[in-house]
Amino acid sequence: MTTTLTLRRPDDWHLHLRDGAMLEGVLPHTAQHFARAIVMPNLVPPVVTGAQAAAYRDRIMAALPEGMNFTPLMTLYLTEETDPEDVVRAHAEGLVTAVKLYPAGATTNSASGVRDFGRVRGVLERMAEAGVPLCVHGEVTDADIDIFDREAVFIERVLDPIRRATPGLRVVMEHVTTADAVAYVRSAEQDLGATITVHHLVINRNHILAGGIRPHYYCLPVAKRETHRQALRAAAVSGDPRFFLGTDSAPHVDAAKETACGCAGIFTAPNALSVLAEVFEAEGALDRLEGFAALHGPAFYGLPPNEERITLTKGAPVELPERIETGDGPVTVFDPGFPLHWHVTG
Amino acid sequence: MTTTLTLRRPDDWHLHLRDGAMLEGVLPHTAQHFARAIVMPNLVPPVVTGAQAAAYRDRIMAALPEGMNFTPLMTLYLTEETDPEDVVRAHAEGLVTAVKLYPAGATTNSASGVRDFGRVRGVLERMAEAGVPLCVHGEVTDADIDIFDREAVFIERVLDPIRRATPGLRVVMEHVTTADAVAYVRSAEQDLGATITVHHLVINRNHILAGGIRPHYYCLPVAKRETHRQALRAAAVSGDPRFFLGTDSAPHVDAAKETACGCAGIFTAPNALSVLAEVFEAEGALDRLEGFAALHGPAFYGLPPNEERITLTKGAPVELPERIETGDGPVTVFDPGFPLHWHVTG
Repeated sequence: MTTTLTLRRPDDWHLHLRDGAMLEGVLPHTAQHFARAIVMPNLVPPVVTGAQAAAYRDRIMAALPEGMNFTPLMTLYLTEETDPEDVVRAHAEGLVTAVKLYPAGATTNSASGVRDFGRVRGVLERMAEAGVPLCVHGEVTDADIDIFDREAVFIERVLDPIRRATPGLRVVMEHVTTADAVAYVRSAEQDLGATITVHHLVINRNHILAGGIRPHYYCLPVAKRETHRQALRAAAVSGDPRFFLGTDSAPHVDAAKETACGCAGIFTAPNALSVLAEVFEAEGALDRLEGFAALHGPAFYGLPPNEERITLTKGAPVELPERIETGDGPVTVFDPGFPLHWHVTG
Repeated sequence: MTTTLTLRRPDDWHLHLRDGAMLEGVLPHTAQHFARAIVMPNLVPPVVTGAQAAAYRDRIMAALPEGMNFTPLMTLYLTEETDPEDVVRAHAEGLVTAVKLYPAGATTNSASGVRDFGRVRGVLERMAEAGVPLCVHGEVTDADIDIFDREAVFIERVLDPIRRATPGLRVVMEHVTTADAVAYVRSAEQDLGATITVHHLVINRNHILAGGIRPHYYCLPVAKRETHRQALRAAAVSGDPRFFLGTDSAPHVDAAKETACGCAGIFTAPNALSVLAEVFEAEGALDRLEGFAALHGPAFYGLPPNEERITLTKGAPVELPERIETGDGPVTVFDPGFPLHWHVTG
């Protein structure tokens, strides 16, 4: 029986750290387990220039508790006014790792996102030439498209046309939630990867809506029906290097979740690796956890994997705190609905 | 241009009045517009005997403000222990109008509902003989059935077998939410009717989940995708007497909605008729509003329509209060998302 697992220290290829008191509250929960993370730029106002990314990186490093090692990988928020030369320069300097595309209105703080994809064609072409990856929130936002169809429609109407029009552009389809997205990523011969969150491996839409409405299970893209969850699990444990971990851990204070219009986002940073180990064990794929959490991501981004190792140990279930306290208020931690036997012990 | 509408006073063929301070708070909002209502028995504990129904009716009448005319039509909550003779006696005495079937766990306060439908066969057969209608919450509760499939699966697995096994049983499929249910009701030659709520004519599941999670749009059965809403609207305005109004107006205090596990239920009593008039006008079917709201229901239940008339008048939009105050706390009123020009004026 496997009771300890040693793997290279994981990275989180999609993370929301916020700013100010919330940043201080949540950063240690990521830094205790992850060496690096792709940090989302959807602050208010968003991080749109290299200079803003540098300033945000400095704030993150200032919030990092002494003795913790963590490298934030910064992103720029793509707008219709983004200056291609600023992007390429910030990337060349090592300041920015990727650019994030939010369709306008798709999720939390996305109002500055792209409405007319034709207006960012020039930036995308320069990014392809310079090897700057594009991270994509893959949902259309048209009011007449059903919320559960928006990812599949985005692939057909937006993502596939962008990729065809911009050969060489490296794209990460983030937080995929559908069998359609899994199939699309598998069909790509090159330059396409996908992140999968921990929570989308665990919940389906029944968790949000059956027997009560549960805002702490609500994120965007929203969890789909069970068949899609099964497709995500199969992709995550397959060993296919195009799929890698991006938790999309997204803290909101409870008051912003438990309200008449609750924010989208699930906070998984504290227990992401414990939950992930349970999932991989249930799928009989603990030997592929390192690939998903620590190898495929760096390979896609052209970065070396981490040299440092961590150890997970299996034992009696440990009760984790249901919520963490931050200077902005309490933030509920993702409840997977099953006991957690695996914990990072070294 | 139609600016006033006179119709027989409507009835509400599916209503939650609760008890105590909540009953006092919500009853006037129904009684001001509706002459009668089928009152749901899902109190805690549920109303399972004729004697309990009589006592609940007395509490409702005691809570009715002086000068208001309103007749509660009482129902019994069907359990696996229900005594058929008590049901038939209470119906014969005019004390009880119908019996309500909740699959156990289907919605608010349904824990005492039916798990093994074979165990209520005897009651249903006596009801069929005695002409006691059965009101049905039409959803299976199996955890492995997707929340959006539960109504269609219920028809196939439970409702159709019950109806075939119990010829002559008059059944109301309540708060139908799918094109499947509309088609099933249309396919029945006799003894099957359906209520449709006001909110299911207005919202689809995007209203609950797109751009924020909205507990005040959450009820069970949950709103489905847009094609189903269109099927409900077509049924409601069709003039088909098998479809009639049951608001399922279901008050919960805001604190029970805006929380980690929000209760199912939408409170529409104050503006149900205003919203309904907007819907029928938009569908070019104002001439069929009286049938849906005041004629088809009594005909199904074998009761005379109300003699009294009400008048709705169209004018500048009126702002209704967003919530009402009750002794238990504030209760948010359904927001249809469009202005309300029609109001009951006499």
